[in-house]
Amino acid sequence: MKTDSIETTAETLTSEEIQKINAYWRAANYLSVGQLYLRDNPLLREPLKLEHIKNMLLGHWGTTPGQNFIYTHLNRVIKKYDLDMIYISGPGHGGPAVVAGTYLEGTYSDVYPSVSQDEEGLKKLFKQFSYPGGISSHASPQTPGSIHEGGELGYSLSHSFGAVLDNPNLIVACVVGDGEAETGPLATAWHSNKFINPFTDGTVLPILHLNGYKISNPTVLARISHQELEQLFKGYGYTPYFVEGEEPETMHQTMAAVLDEAIEQIKQIKQAAKDGNAERPRWPMIVLRSPKGWTGPKEIDGHKIEGNFRSHQVPLAVSGSTPPENLHLLETWLKSYKPEELFDEKGKLMPELAALAPEGEKRMGANPNANGGFLLRDLRLPDFRDYAEHVNAPGSPGEGDTHVMGKFLRDVIKHNEDKRNFRIFGPDETVSNRLEAIFETTNRQWEADTVDADEFLQPNGMVMEMLSEHQCEGWLEGYLLTGRHGLFNCYEAFIHIVDSMFNQHAKWLKATLELPWRAKIASLNILLTSTVWRQDHNGFTHQDPGFMDHVVNKKANIVRVYLAPDANCLLSIIDHCLRSRHYVNVIIAAKHPAPQWLTIEQAIEHCTRGIGIWSFASNDQDCEPDLIMACAGDVPTLETLAAVSIMREHLPELKIRVVNVVDLFKLQKSSEHTHGMSDRDYDALFTKDKPVVFAFHGYPWLVHRLTYNRVNNNNIHVRGYKEEGTITTSFDMTVLNEMDRFHLVMDAIDRLPQTGSRGVYLKQLLTDKLTQHRHYINENGKDMDEILNWKWDLEA
Amino acid sequence: MKTDSIETTAETLTSEEIQKINAYWRAANYLSVGQLYLRDNPLLREPLKLEHIKNMLLGHWGTTPGQNFIYTHLNRVIKKYDLDMIYISGPGHGGPAVVAGTYLEGTYSDVYPSVSQDEEGLKKLFKQFSYPGGISSHASPQTPGSIHEGGELGYSLSHSFGAVLDNPNLIVACVVGDGEAETGPLATAWHSNKFINPFTDGTVLPILHLNGYKISNPTVLARISHQELEQLFKGYGYTPYFVEGEEPETMHQTMAAVLDEAIEQIKQIKQAAKDGNAERPRWPMIVLRSPKGWTGPKEIDGHKIEGNFRSHQVPLAVSGSTPPENLHLLETWLKSYKPEELFDEKGKLMPELAALAPEGEKRMGANPNANGGFLLRDLRLPDFRDYAEHVNAPGSPGEGDTHVMGKFLRDVIKHNEDKRNFRIFGPDETVSNRLEAIFETTNRQWEADTVDADEFLQPNGMVMEMLSEHQCEGWLEGYLLTGRHGLFNCYEAFIHIVDSMFNQHAKWLKATLELPWRAKIASLNILLTSTVWRQDHNGFTHQDPGFMDHVVNKKANIVRVYLAPDANCLLSIIDHCLRSRHYVNVIIAAKHPAPQWLTIEQAIEHCTRGIGIWSFASNDQDCEPDLIMACAGDVPTLETLAAVSIMREHLPELKIRVVNVVDLFKLQKSSEHTHGMSDRDYDALFTKDKPVVFAFHGYPWLVHRLTYNRVNNNNIHVRGYKEEGTITTSFDMTVLNEMDRFHLVMDAIDRLPQTGSRGVYLKQLLTDKLTQHRHYINENGKDMDEILNWKWDLEA
Repeated sequence: MKTDSIETTAETLTSEEIQKINAYWRAANYLSVGQLYLRDNPLLREPLKLEHIKNMLLGHWGTTPGQNFIYTHLNRVIKKYDLDMIYISGPGHGGPAVVAGTYLEGTYSDVYPSVSQDEEGLKKLFKQFSYPGGISSHASPQTPGSIHEGGELGYSLSHSFGAVLDNPNLIVACVVGDGEAETGPLATAWHSNKFINPFTDGTVLPILHLNGYKISNPTVLARISHQELEQLFKGYGYTPYFVEGEEPETMHQTMAAVLDEAIEQIKQIKQAAKDGNAERPRWPMIVLRSPKGWTGPKEIDGHKIEGNFRSHQVPLAVSGSTPPENLHLLETWLKSYKPEELFDEKGKLMPELAALAPEGEKRMGANPNANGGFLLRDLRLPDFRDYAEHVNAPGSPGEGDTHVMGKFLRDVIKHNEDKRNFRIFGPDETVSNRLEAIFETTNRQWEADTVDADEFLQPNGMVMEMLSEHQCEGWLEGYLLTGRHGLFNCYEAFIHIVDSMFNQHAKWLKATLELPWRAKIASLNILLTSTVWRQDHNGFTHQDPGFMDHVVNKKANIVRVYLAPDANCLLSIIDHCLRSRHYVNVIIAAKHPAPQWLTIEQAIEHCTRGIGIWSFASNDQDCEPDLIMACAGDVPTLETLAAVSIMREHLPELKIRVVNVVDLFKLQKSSEHTHGMSDRDYDALFTKDKPVVFAFHGYPWLVHRLTYNRVNNNNIHVRGYKEEGTITTSFDMTVLNEMDRFHLVMDAIDRLPQTGSRGVYLKQLLTDKLTQHRHYINENGKDMDEILNWKWDLEA
Repeated sequence: MKTDSIETTAETLTSEEIQKINAYWRAANYLSVGQLYLRDNPLLREPLKLEHIKNMLLGHWGTTPGQNFIYTHLNRVIKKYDLDMIYISGPGHGGPAVVAGTYLEGTYSDVYPSVSQDEEGLKKLFKQFSYPGGISSHASPQTPGSIHEGGELGYSLSHSFGAVLDNPNLIVACVVGDGEAETGPLATAWHSNKFINPFTDGTVLPILHLNGYKISNPTVLARISHQELEQLFKGYGYTPYFVEGEEPETMHQTMAAVLDEAIEQIKQIKQAAKDGNAERPRWPMIVLRSPKGWTGPKEIDGHKIEGNFRSHQVPLAVSGSTPPENLHLLETWLKSYKPEELFDEKGKLMPELAALAPEGEKRMGANPNANGGFLLRDLRLPDFRDYAEHVNAPGSPGEGDTHVMGKFLRDVIKHNEDKRNFRIFGPDETVSNRLEAIFETTNRQWEADTVDADEFLQPNGMVMEMLSEHQCEGWLEGYLLTGRHGLFNCYEAFIHIVDSMFNQHAKWLKATLELPWRAKIASLNILLTSTVWRQDHNGFTHQDPGFMDHVVNKKANIVRVYLAPDANCLLSIIDHCLRSRHYVNVIIAAKHPAPQWLTIEQAIEHCTRGIGIWSFASNDQDCEPDLIMACAGDVPTLETLAAVSIMREHLPELKIRVVNVVDLFKLQKSSEHTHGMSDRDYDALFTKDKPVVFAFHGYPWLVHRLTYNRVNNNNIHVRGYKEEGTITTSFDMTVLNEMDRFHLVMDAIDRLPQTGSRGVYLKQLLTDKLTQHRHYINENGKDMDEILNWKWDLEA
């Protein structure tokens, strides 16, 4: 152990303790190798034969023994200090270790009784691993104690820090792979320590697992100097402790000493915080430098294996077509752990070893925080109707939809202050997204230095802001997975930064739904604002409504997309989302002042249906419509209503139906999505044969993807964002993408030959209007007054 | 200046030099404020009136004066040391600074002659900024000298390091915002210094612009101790220099001294490398701590502005509805820069100031590296036909398609070794993706420590591998933008990590296409392998073919998607992609050994068309088909051909046409994509009324999105990945998603009532087969022999 900050005694453990701990570690390693190779003869009670070996050897050895080492030592400190601890396995493919650890402590058999604590159970444990339909080589949802799969690398620390928020007694032991440490999200996640309150939050104990290699490359952090590594982590604000070597006895002694020291330091920090010490703590972190594939074969075919990238996957091939000595080598390797000393006759772990594990919910596999749905309590929600915008007539002025919702969110925070189980996350956009009302009741949590002129910045607050969408998403996921509620607010275009994180979370939700022992967690609520249509001063780079396209590919029972046409609808939507479970809810809403359409009662009814005819804007009440004007999203709705008012003035005989879509999946068939509409209901809205002009918030093709198999498919003409934009007004953005009121009318006329010469005349009029608009905006840098001040003014 | 590593004299500059440099900086600041506010009276030759002010005040002041300061000082060292330097503006919204800098040095007027070096030009310069249809508040494509827009934060350092690869004389001055420094991609990009060869590559000089605030929060790096900050950058492997303060004279002196020191250090490092010094250099980096909104209003309405987040955007509101004194405050602010001393009567920069800028291509706005298309040279490509797999009959065994391509890529590297203008990037997956042949001719470039057992790791190599998709993508973008070629190879599922980077690059390509003075650059080639269908040991987390869905939303003239059914097609595709310009080419290919279908001649013909009938598998040569079996991607093609062989055995009277799609956009209408097919051509392939069973590599709905408006739309039945998967065999994956041969046949029978009772019988047979498969794979962990050994064996 090298550290310049502490001195530890070299005798934390007695030699008997070392022996026991080492035996426990051997047991975990034995189970890990068994998982990689064996489908039978799990205790080697007979000579190993090819028929005991799996037909396909798949899985990963490299990180496993190091994680077994860590897990074993964490068990010791949990018992010694009576800790409340969960384990996050950051490195890729650490599955065998977590499975072995939870099996040895008994939780695996508790959850899966057929994987029992005997020879038969061991056989099942081994066979299922990396086996068709079995369990994966990560700490997958199937693994008790896991809230982090690790299939995609980089999020272990963010998840860990999210988990300890408002969880003051929890310690998350987060094993960070030195491979994943190269990812961007992980590299910035170290800075999470500037946001953790030592009094109200728990502790993340990062353990950098420096085993030196990725798939076939060394890792960066393993190949810089010790001094640089130490500076890096001090620079990140930690107190680093080093455990380096490979000789088991020394390593056990050192690891135990360092872990004791780290736990003592954590206790001191927590105590100091209770005593009112306001200084940002330099939390401990541990660097464990041990060989990749530790205790595995040293060399095979002249290639170095232990301590080399070659131990990443299955290091020794054993099959009918490999040299017979490989089978023997495997047997020697397995026997090197002396299973006969570890398991009794029935195949159960020896009682003196089993006694090393914590008991009950102190076992990391059984800690309730790792199955957060069981800890989840409903939010106390204020009545959202109390926050309604007063809409005396459609088109009345609004103050900005998210701004209205901000007051509701403020009171959600207030109502749940005592429970501390609702947080808002954002990349420094919460004010920009006009949710600033929440700062009337809470603050941004911030543990770094402050100055006088700071605003809403306190060591304790329910808002988390860091300029990293990865951190916001990762923190929130960790918070939800441990049984709390939250909302991530983000500029629409930049949510793509976490496309892949959304993927993995959606996959986690899908997989956990299939596990009866996992309880449902709160939904992941993503509020997208500062949308494509309102980038007045940010321009083209900030325009991308494609997250919806990304989301709709995931399992229908997991994803929901809502487009709020106005503030009252947004209130109804957010209330619904905060009550929902186990979804990803994507909410798209406006932040700028804009016309409002529905009273709160109308909004509730409309949002409950998710799609519907807006009768105040329609004139087809007594007959079949000639035309359906459909819209989804705030700006498309505005332009659609403006288009309708033009048509109702100039072509009054046209029977127009206005359909607004709030719940995007309504467009899909009920066979494809639980929110989908039957063909009969869909046809009742959109008809089987009438033209539909659809103004859509996103890329227009998404509507076609959702409706391609509807009868009226060929008559739907969709306008949306087609990747045209610049710094300009919202209205001009619609013009550039041909979704403005004038284009929408022209689109309708093109599909309504019955409008005859008056249609032709109107088209010419509108074409002139567009020319006039272009000229005016170029000259004045703003819209013509008739656009700026347009109001819906038809009689209902 | 604080630094423990150097001592500099406090008198780098004479007081006359300081005065001049300060005047140049004032000029840049004046132009920046002018851009924010003025549409007329650009030199304040008459008293400022409201009519001179823009109608909408949009833009960002905060980062601008600091960047003006840096740009001015960089000009000095460029001249002093005759440097070849470009400027990357990392902080968000630094546009006014880069525009001001390039205008003052003359490049802006060179590129846009109407923005001339006189009062009229100034007026245009001011008005266009953050104005509808004008230029954005970032260093957008419209800005000369820019290769990095900065609209989405986090990629400045990766772009910079990519730009200096194989560019030994280039220095990229990369201004890193302390906001963007919080993003994941930026946090890991600092580690790029472990990959830069001081002899063959150029230099990145990072300048951390520590101005303390983001939109409405402080930044993390500004609120940790000086010691931590220094440790962090030393830990990252740099020699940090600090320039801290706000008093202009001292700051000029310090900045000049530090920059001289940094340049001298860079020269020493380069010289040492020439002399054979193999030690990894600790390159200099600069921390510039200066007030946000430096030189702007100190306080407005009792709020601190300079040195506070409130100076982020337009700090002082001036309009008809603001207090009249605001106009006066603005005038005072503008006049504080003393424009009358800076510009001559015509409005041209005073000659003694203009003399401070470098000349010709030494000007950062005119450096050819920032318009890389002009430096781009064609690759010398070997004849890809020489690498063809020998296919004596369809279904002959293949060694893995990417493995075959690896040899071609190896020789592309070899043929262009002298030019050093082709690189391969990957997140440690190049070997896993079976491109290992390239290591016969080159290595992974690696400047960190090495040990004996390392493989293909050298200070100099054409492969860049770091476990960060962000870094791979960012490096490659920087490499391409400066006029070189490259390929990014990536696991298919994890390419979503860079969805948003792809977005921004596609937007950059779209915008630069519209600028005649920008030359086209090489295409961004993304090879996706380790695909959804082959995750035998990685499982569900590694399954996501949705990048295609993401890509197709971008402008049609930018994006291309290719699905290689076999190795010879892949060769033809890669040859085409490496010759192409200004696209993003997404290539999806298999890495596992799999049957091959086309000879190289057939592959060339097929890929040239992009879509076509595979006549060896079809039996409709003399008549209309009863059924079209379509496929795209390697596994779908295999399953389709197996399905066809089942049908041709059991239902020989059926006339089946097999259509294979290589170029995805062929499915779209020619009006939507340049590669699209006319309805006539499409109908000729797919018919107007016959059932189509389409096995698709990706999510099935993408095919519907592309074909929704084809006549035969209602008859297309698409199978693809529907988010079902686990650790299992490739064939079993197709079963889980119902895209296997048996399901495909059953799908066809369901659509072919004429198959009558024999169809019903065959369906029952195949259902039994599926049950048998499920049983077998559960027992044995591998596929039944008849699946494993299936070969295409029909007569052509």
